[in-house]
This record gives sequence, C-alpha cells and structure tokens, in this order.
Amino acid sequence: MNTVDLINKKQAGGELTTGEIQYLIDGYTYSKIPDYQIAALLMAIYFQGMTHRETIDLVRIMVESGKTAHHNQSPFVKVDKHSTGGVGDKVSLLVAPIAASQGVPVPMISGRGLGHTGGTLDKLESIPGFSTRLSLRAFEIQVAEIGCALIGQTDEIVPADQKMYALRDVTATVRSIPLITSSILSKKIAEGVDALLLDVKFGSGAVFQSLEGARQLAGNLVRIGTESGLEVRALLTDMSQPLGQAVGNWIEVRECLDIMTGKAAPDDLVKISLAQAAIMLILGKKAVDYDEGLKIARQAVESGAALNKFVEIAKCQQADTSYLENPDKYTAPAYQKDITADDDAYIANVDALTVGLAAVELGAGRRRKEDSIDYTAGIYLHKKRGDRVAKGDILATLYTSMEEINQPILSSVSDAFRFSKEPPASQPLIVSELSVEGEKHWNH
Amino acid sequence: MNTVDLINKKQAGGELTTGEIQYLIDGYTYSKIPDYQIAALLMAIYFQGMTHRETIDLVRIMVESGKTAHHNQSPFVKVDKHSTGGVGDKVSLLVAPIAASQGVPVPMISGRGLGHTGGTLDKLESIPGFSTRLSLRAFEIQVAEIGCALIGQTDEIVPADQKMYALRDVTATVRSIPLITSSILSKKIAEGVDALLLDVKFGSGAVFQSLEGARQLAGNLVRIGTESGLEVRALLTDMSQPLGQAVGNWIEVRECLDIMTGKAAPDDLVKISLAQAAIMLILGKKAVDYDEGLKIARQAVESGAALNKFVEIAKCQQADTSYLENPDKYTAPAYQKDITADDDAYIANVDALTVGLAAVELGAGRRRKEDSIDYTAGIYLHKKRGDRVAKGDILATLYTSMEEINQPILSSVSDAFRFSKEPPASQPLIVSELSVEGEKHWNH
Repeated sequence: MNTVDLINKKQAGGELTTGEIQYLIDGYTYSKIPDYQIAALLMAIYFQGMTHRETIDLVRIMVESGKTAHHNQSPFVKVDKHSTGGVGDKVSLLVAPIAASQGVPVPMISGRGLGHTGGTLDKLESIPGFSTRLSLRAFEIQVAEIGCALIGQTDEIVPADQKMYALRDVTATVRSIPLITSSILSKKIAEGVDALLLDVKFGSGAVFQSLEGARQLAGNLVRIGTESGLEVRALLTDMSQPLGQAVGNWIEVRECLDIMTGKAAPDDLVKISLAQAAIMLILGKKAVDYDEGLKIARQAVESGAALNKFVEIAKCQQADTSYLENPDKYTAPAYQKDITADDDAYIANVDALTVGLAAVELGAGRRRKEDSIDYTAGIYLHKKRGDRVAKGDILATLYTSMEEINQPILSSVSDAFRFSKEPPASQPLIVSELSVEGEKHWNH
Repeated sequence: MNTVDLINKKQAGGELTTGEIQYLIDGYTYSKIPDYQIAALLMAIYFQGMTHRETIDLVRIMVESGKTAHHNQSPFVKVDKHSTGGVGDKVSLLVAPIAASQGVPVPMISGRGLGHTGGTLDKLESIPGFSTRLSLRAFEIQVAEIGCALIGQTDEIVPADQKMYALRDVTATVRSIPLITSSILSKKIAEGVDALLLDVKFGSGAVFQSLEGARQLAGNLVRIGTESGLEVRALLTDMSQPLGQAVGNWIEVRECLDIMTGKAAPDDLVKISLAQAAIMLILGKKAVDYDEGLKIARQAVESGAALNKFVEIAKCQQADTSYLENPDKYTAPAYQKDITADDDAYIANVDALTVGLAAVELGAGRRRKEDSIDYTAGIYLHKKRGDRVAKGDILATLYTSMEEINQPILSSVSDAFRFSKEPPASQPLIVSELSVEGEKHWNH
C-alpha cells in the first residue's frame, strides 16, 4: 500500500477499505508514516468526510492501537459522560461523584483545555496534589474500589488518538464530524464503559457553533457509538454563554464545592448537571425513569453523598483534601479587577467564546501546548443572560496571578456582555435528547 | 500571525492577504513553520483554490524566496518552453537547441521525472558526463556565451518551490491549478526569461487527464504569467499516447539525435517539436509568423545547426560528446524483450499512463525519490495509434539492465495497446493555442 495513493483516494471522495485505514493508523502510530502525510489526509477527510463504515472501522482500529481497561469485577453498568467542550463547563466534576455515590461506576478519562474551552484535567489539577496520571491498572483498581477515577489519557490508551489529536489541533482539522466521533468514542471504549452520555454543545463557545452542526455530530456519535457496542444518549445543549458563574480552574472547582455544600446554586449549571446525572443513573440502571433519576441525583447532592464521593476520589488521587474542606485556604489570586455596567439594562447574552478567550489570556488556559496554567486565574460572572443590571453594578471580576490586569482584557470581557432594553427571550439550555431511537424534544 | 488561523481561513474559503502569504512562504522556506502545517494548508488550497490576486502574490513571493538569473548582457528576447509533463516527451531536447541555434537565448531550468512522467534532467544526465548542476552564475555565463544552458533547479533559485514541490509530491497535492501555476511560473521568472511557451497536456499520461482541466490550467498560466511580466503562450496537446516511439532516458536522447541527424522522423514528435520551436522563434522575434517560424525551425534541423548547438551545450556541460556523435557506443541494455500482436488489427491507442508506469518499473524512473535510474531502461514503441498490425508483428521492445524482464511488465505493456477492427478516428495532437488574447483553434 502507498500512503499517497490513499490520500489521493480520500481526496477524490473515495471510501477507504478496512485494511487501508489499518495501514494508515498503524503507520502513523508507529511513526512509519510522517506527520505531513497524515496532516494532508486529515484535511482531505475534513473536506470529504468518512462513511459510516469507515468511521466504525476507524474507532475500532484506534481502540486497538492501545490497551483497553477492564472492569469485569464489577457487576454494574459502567457509565461515563463526555462534553464536546465549552466555557465554564465543570459538569463532569459534579456528575461523576453524584453517579458514583449512587453505585454507578464511572471510569472517566478526560482531556485538557483546548483553545478557549476548559478541560476537566486542568480543573482537577488545580486541587493541590491531585494526580490525574494513573496507570491503566491503577485506574481499574480505583474504579473497582471506590466506583470512580478521574484521570487523563495514559500512553497505554489509544496512542493513535494522542498523536492524531495533537496534529489536528495544529492543522485546523479539529472540526470534522468523523474525526471528532472517532476521537471521543475510541477513548470511551478504551476506558471500559458500557454506556455513555454525550453533551454536544452548540453556540459561540462550542466546536460547532450552529445547532445543525451539533445535531449532525450528536447523531453520528449516537449511531457509531451504538454500533461500536455502547449504549449512547446525547443531549444538545446551549453554549452561547458560559455555564455557571465561574470560568477558570480552581474557581470552577470552588463553584462545584459550593453547589455540593449547598452554598450556591447557579440555575443553569445545577439544571444541566442534575439532568445529566439523572440520565447517567438511568443508563446505570439505578433509576427507572428521568423523574426518579433526577430525584436520586438531587438527594445525592443534598445529603452530602456527592461531596463525600468527590473528596474520596480526590484523596485516592493524592489530593490535599483540606483545600476541598476549607476552600478559603487556597492561595488568593495576586490581581483582580471588576468590570461594571455603563447603563441600566437587561443582559441579552454573555458571549461564551469571548469569555473563554479572555480567560486563556488571564492564564486559565494555554496559548501554546507548552504553556503552564495559572490555576488562580479566571473570570467570575456576577450577571448572566436575563439579569437586570443598574449602572455601576459589577458584571464580572477578573482574576490572575500572572501580571496586572490590562485594559484590553477588561475591554474584551466588557464586550462579551450584550445588553437589551427589554428582557431577552428565554432560550432553552437543553434542546433535545438523542438516542438510537431518534431525537426527542427536551421537556423536563 | 498564527499559522492555524491562516489554515482555517483558507479551509473556510477565505482569501489570504499578501502579508499572510508572505508569512506562510517565508515561514516554510526558513523552517519556522513545520511540514505538517503546510501539508494541511496545501490540501486546503487543493479544495478551496486561490484567487487571481493570491496566485500572483504567491508567484512573486516564491520568486523572492531566492535569487533570480539575469541575462542583461543579451539584447535578445530570452525564451523558454515548459511542458506540464508526459510520457516520451523529449521535446525540450529538440526545441532548446533549435531556438538557440537561431539566436534565441534559451535559459532552461528543468525538472526530474515524477511518477510516470519523464524528466528532462534525467534524460540529459543519461549522456555520460552531462552535468545539470550549474551555479546561477555559471548558468548566466553559459547562456551569454552559447545562447543556451540546460540545468536543474539550483539551491539559489526559488527555495520555497523546492520545499513545497517535494511536499506536494508526497501529500497528493500536486494536481492543484494555483499550486502548479505558481510552481512553474516562479521557476521560469527566476531563470530570467522574457517569454514562455507552455505545453499543457491532457489525456491519460497528463497531470490533468481531461481537456477541460488542462484548459483551465493553461488559461491560469497565461493570465498569471502575463500579469507577472512574461509574454506567455500555451498549447493544449494530446498525451493519451506517448510522444514519439521511445520512452526512457538514453533511448529518448537517441531518438532526438536520430531526428537531428535526419535518420528518423516520428510524425507526432517532429510535428509538435517544430510547432513549439516555431512559436519560440516568434516569441524571440526571429520569425514574424508561424509559417516563417516553422520554416526556420525545419531548416535548423535539416542544416545540422540544431545538432551542432546540442553538442555545443553538452560539451559546455562536461558531457562526453562522443556518445552523441556515435550513439552505438552507448552500453547496450542487459535485457530486452518484445511483445507482439495477437491478431490482425488497427491500433486504437497506446495508453500513455500504462507505458509510463511500465517504464518506471523497468528502471527508467524512480519509484521513490532516493531510487537511482537505469539510463538504458525504457520501451520502444514500434507501432502507435492508427497503425495496422498483422498477427505476430512486434508492437514494442522493452529494455532494462536491472533484472530479467518478467511477465507482469510484459503484460502491462501489452495492455497499453488497444485495438480496433476499423482505423481509429484521427485525434488532433495540438488542439489550440492560448495567449492573453484568448484561445485559438490550432489550424496549422
């Protein structure tokens, strides 16, 4: 087989055979095919797509490029959830302990922040001592012992995806439905789950900004995931403004702690987290329907079971849990500045992409792969869509320990706020739920 | 500027600014931007194209990536011709000495064989001692002294193209009109010509197999070349069967010697070579019209002036010209085999692509960049389109010094021959001529 011929075939809109995909993926994983040929192939895939059959093959071949976790000792249905990425999306930090505290094993492998979107791993690592680097064996043991582990991709798992994902990031080939599908599903299959809830976002802070693009991705994830042997559900959810009030790393962990200790409850974040936890409980056979799932999830938070599980997980992963018990102990950011409202108005939107990019500038994300993160950095949104503000009200507070906060960043966060004279029309946070049976309007 | 953003822009169909193209080309030439990002960019250009303005900028920026030859000491119009590549296309070996012998300076920088297409450089280097590696200064001096030099691309000339061309070859991004246009024109401008004749081929052995694809390329070359300051004409010519009877390297040089010594005159090759020489003489202001150009070109061959010039060029470039004076002196190929006709029939076509690929297998071309060439290898076509053959007639002879000729290669050359009971309809060799004034049906 000849790599150029295969690039040519895909470029011309052809369907690669199973053997051809195997040749390309194995060749790249074992460095027999160079980066530049795979970069050209990925761009050809971006334009020409992949068939259903090609994508299923790609998922399987990527899984087989590495090892797979096994949780056979547990009789329960292993469930994970995965978000396609957003701003202020700390839902995993809430739903994993909620579901695990109710007996649903959650073997969760997460990623780092990418561009303007935050990453669960970075948020977890803002907790002093928290280690996300577990071997596959340690991962299996922790899931067996306490029902949940929150780790990063190990070298053992889907090495093909590790190389391809890094390459896609620097070659503008992230936004491809078959490539996103195979990247997500290969990792989820390799982590050893039986069922998967996907939170597919649309809006300015999402990979696919249009609802239609997100719907196509969600449909593809459900179809390919199901054929790959998982029980899959997907939610289409709004990412036109950040989720919750905190955007950053430690600031987001703290927001989760506030929810799990009953100190605060930002509407959108609580709603979407309980909804996702409820579906995970259904997938994990711990609830018969959504209402029961929601009730169990709410109780898990209110009873403190979710917090206890989160602290237990953190302790298992070497975290200094005194920071979770007493968040005020955390180092305060060296610099902070407020932005305020210029006029009396309603807030029509707080643009997720703009806030996400500003948070990266403040140090909450990486501009280059090799950058380190300022865990104290972030943005706290005092007001969000639909809120009425008076002139002089604080809209947001910016935090960083890197350097004095400059005017351009303040201006860009100000620009994220869009105002209107009238209250904005309400926008559904969760639009619909997709499963192998089709798409259902969300009416809970 | 950020490379990923620029790839994204082109991917989305946007127009890159002059500064953005400069950033990308300079970045790649000086290895600040890695191969894989340019590979992705080239594939995005393959799908999205480039505007007229972008292509003109790209040509200029590529020229400026290196040095330019100057032939200011000559008061004459410097003319070159360039073929988009074919099988058995040794026209440059004939037209360069014809035009130069009549006082048209021909500073010609050629390429090597690529895939199934032969390269002028490889053919020249089959002449023992012939050096195609001249410095830019030596190139200028030889053109000033004897009116012609036939060299390969030096490191000084268009380094951006050298890197990009090598990358395109291995990433399936050769067949892009703006990329072909900028690659050809940047090299031709850098070699210091005033006028350029382009032989744009269509048919199975051409880069663009369809006449329509070739026409678009020819139109783009004429427009962009003219706006870049050259006088440009282009011919659309048939490459569905090889040109002439010889396909290889030394075997093609020998066919040219036979023509220049009056020993043989394959119709198609003589016709296309004299037509191109005539146009070069017009471009070089040595003929007022096509008929005069054709007459001068024919006389240059018949008088021996073309041969003398070819030998003079070869001598200047260190060749052992005794091989040109006595071609029988050349080492005979170690192996040869004939293929014969199975039946009485007319030959409907001899497929150029099939013959080209078989010649590469015999050692006349490179399967990989690092392969060396067997200069004795090749295929001699005793019969071509329109010829009537009787059962048992020799159709072609295969030559190589690498290893005994095997059945699969013999079969593939046999398969190149297509037969018909009736004489095939005649097909024009030259379809039309394009200039800045438009396309004219070829009626000479």
